[in-house]
Amino acid sequence: MTSLLAVRYTAARTLTTGPAHSTPPGPGEVELAPAYVGICGTDLHIYHGDMDTRVHAPAVLGHEMSGRVIRVGAGVDGFTPGQAVTVMPLRYDGTCPACQRGHQHICQNLNFIGIDSPGAMQQRWTVPADTLIPLPDSLPLQHAALVEPTAVAVHDVTRAAIQEDEQVLVVGAGPVGVLIALVATATGAQVRVVEPNAHRRRLAEALGLSVWDPAADDLPSLVHAWTGGAGAHASFEVSGAQAGIATAIDALAVRGRLCLVAIHPTPREVNLHRFFWRELTLIGARLYQRSDFETATQLIANHVIPAEKLISKIVPLSETPAAFQALEAGGDVMKILIDCTSEPAKAGAA
Amino acid sequence: MTSLLAVRYTAARTLTTGPAHSTPPGPGEVELAPAYVGICGTDLHIYHGDMDTRVHAPAVLGHEMSGRVIRVGAGVDGFTPGQAVTVMPLRYDGTCPACQRGHQHICQNLNFIGIDSPGAMQQRWTVPADTLIPLPDSLPLQHAALVEPTAVAVHDVTRAAIQEDEQVLVVGAGPVGVLIALVATATGAQVRVVEPNAHRRRLAEALGLSVWDPAADDLPSLVHAWTGGAGAHASFEVSGAQAGIATAIDALAVRGRLCLVAIHPTPREVNLHRFFWRELTLIGARLYQRSDFETATQLIANHVIPAEKLISKIVPLSETPAAFQALEAGGDVMKILIDCTSEPAKAGAA
Repeated sequence: MTSLLAVRYTAARTLTTGPAHSTPPGPGEVELAPAYVGICGTDLHIYHGDMDTRVHAPAVLGHEMSGRVIRVGAGVDGFTPGQAVTVMPLRYDGTCPACQRGHQHICQNLNFIGIDSPGAMQQRWTVPADTLIPLPDSLPLQHAALVEPTAVAVHDVTRAAIQEDEQVLVVGAGPVGVLIALVATATGAQVRVVEPNAHRRRLAEALGLSVWDPAADDLPSLVHAWTGGAGAHASFEVSGAQAGIATAIDALAVRGRLCLVAIHPTPREVNLHRFFWRELTLIGARLYQRSDFETATQLIANHVIPAEKLISKIVPLSETPAAFQALEAGGDVMKILIDCTSEPAKAGAA
Repeated sequence: MTSLLAVRYTAARTLTTGPAHSTPPGPGEVELAPAYVGICGTDLHIYHGDMDTRVHAPAVLGHEMSGRVIRVGAGVDGFTPGQAVTVMPLRYDGTCPACQRGHQHICQNLNFIGIDSPGAMQQRWTVPADTLIPLPDSLPLQHAALVEPTAVAVHDVTRAAIQEDEQVLVVGAGPVGVLIALVATATGAQVRVVEPNAHRRRLAEALGLSVWDPAADDLPSLVHAWTGGAGAHASFEVSGAQAGIATAIDALAVRGRLCLVAIHPTPREVNLHRFFWRELTLIGARLYQRSDFETATQLIANHVIPAEKLISKIVPLSETPAAFQALEAGGDVMKILIDCTSEPAKAGAA
């Protein structure tokens, strides 16, 4: 058996390829062979060194993945070697007040696998069996690597309680913004997307979405005409920008809902008077629950989410450092997947 | 019949007493004799000249009131002269998108009686019959003047969906904050109030409320100990201060709800990351609906809200200017009522 490969974050803007270690699964654990791993915005933040207080180098990143079971530990039922799975990368303590109230996915002591503990950018990965989500045989593993970000979008659309025929504005057309727009559209909503970046606008339009440019378009007039003067039923702030917050608030109808998806690391100026005046609601949304993962799997398997159109590029695991650099450079890139099956280890895998 | 009296806002910090005009009620209207009128924070804003773009002097203020029907216009059923009533001071157009969706109380073209049109600080007042709320005979008219601010509190507690046994923090112990605390307590919630002003703390404590001083007390530790590390289920921002927003956010448990009651005229710095991280919800709440008025009437009539303890002082209509000055000076004042029945006109009234 040839050696197994892993990619590790070793210092700001430095990823190093090296040996992966096969860890025998303990009780309740499963060893996987990751197949495809997506690179997420959070991975880029880590790569920039912005999360060094939380991520301790050397660290294996990666939490958007698909793969196959290699072997199962004692007491694990329902999974067999070769089975296709994805991982919901959350470990909760089950005892904190949030868990006790049923909100395990935002446990007050959450361990996010791929950030707080080793991730999937390696050829062997041992995780708790209760993080596994079985995948249908019909679902290509490349597509299944998009289940995790799609689950984020499903969670957001669920938190915002989007209903059929509602008018919904999505502010920001990165991968999560686009997925929210697609999931909301699948729910029967009328969706408009706002995105200042021309590359992203083109990618979103290629997916059939209606996209407005906040620099060129008169957004208040467009929203007014679109909604007959009412405003949108809901908006999603997925830009992370100060300007995006105002756009998402100003577009809303009386009793409209703003779902806050993006991370705003520092306090932001918010027009609270508008929340008062129109009785708006702001809804924070983070991560996902198991039902969101299951729904996301179905949406991709049924081609409601066109995964193949969202994947810009697939690169071998050994070329991960170059892929991060390409994402940094921007351009016409939506989602880059890392192919963990294309290395020498493939020959040695089960 | 002696002349009727009115008090008018004529310029910043100037209230002038003068004749009131008895207006025969048109179709669908009712002429009232106001009995007691409360002075509200909004009245003080107007008095300061801060709302001169909206309030056109000379203007009769007053929207917290009780009184009796004098005569009814054509087509008005269900009200008879002498009947005790209060007024829900909202006129909506019924045609705007908000009204069409059932949110008439925040109509996009709302006319708020007492701000946008003449109010109750006069001895005769003609209003649309559909603004009237009948009062039970057992309810003293002094107490009934508190129905309007109590309806605000009922609306806020309803918007926040406060449940029995929930832990609730109220930030700000002005009249509305105290009423929210009392209504939430009546709902079965455990309530704590935060208030930096010593006068207001004393008044709130005299009502049986538990009050914390943000300057002297270590709020995070108090909230932690009170909630077993979970945080509060809900909070109400009733201070209008930048610091109050942070207090109301930081106190919340995972999935906690922040009900925004206070007016923040300018954008505020808000820790949106906390909304994301804990999946918090911000709920804007403005004014009230008819059901809130009806509930408020019952709460006061049944002594759940101890109106007599909230009324600091009752002054004759002619002394209204001095009452505004007293409120400006602050001190141990919760609610000042204006007595419209104590003037010479009383002799001439029905």
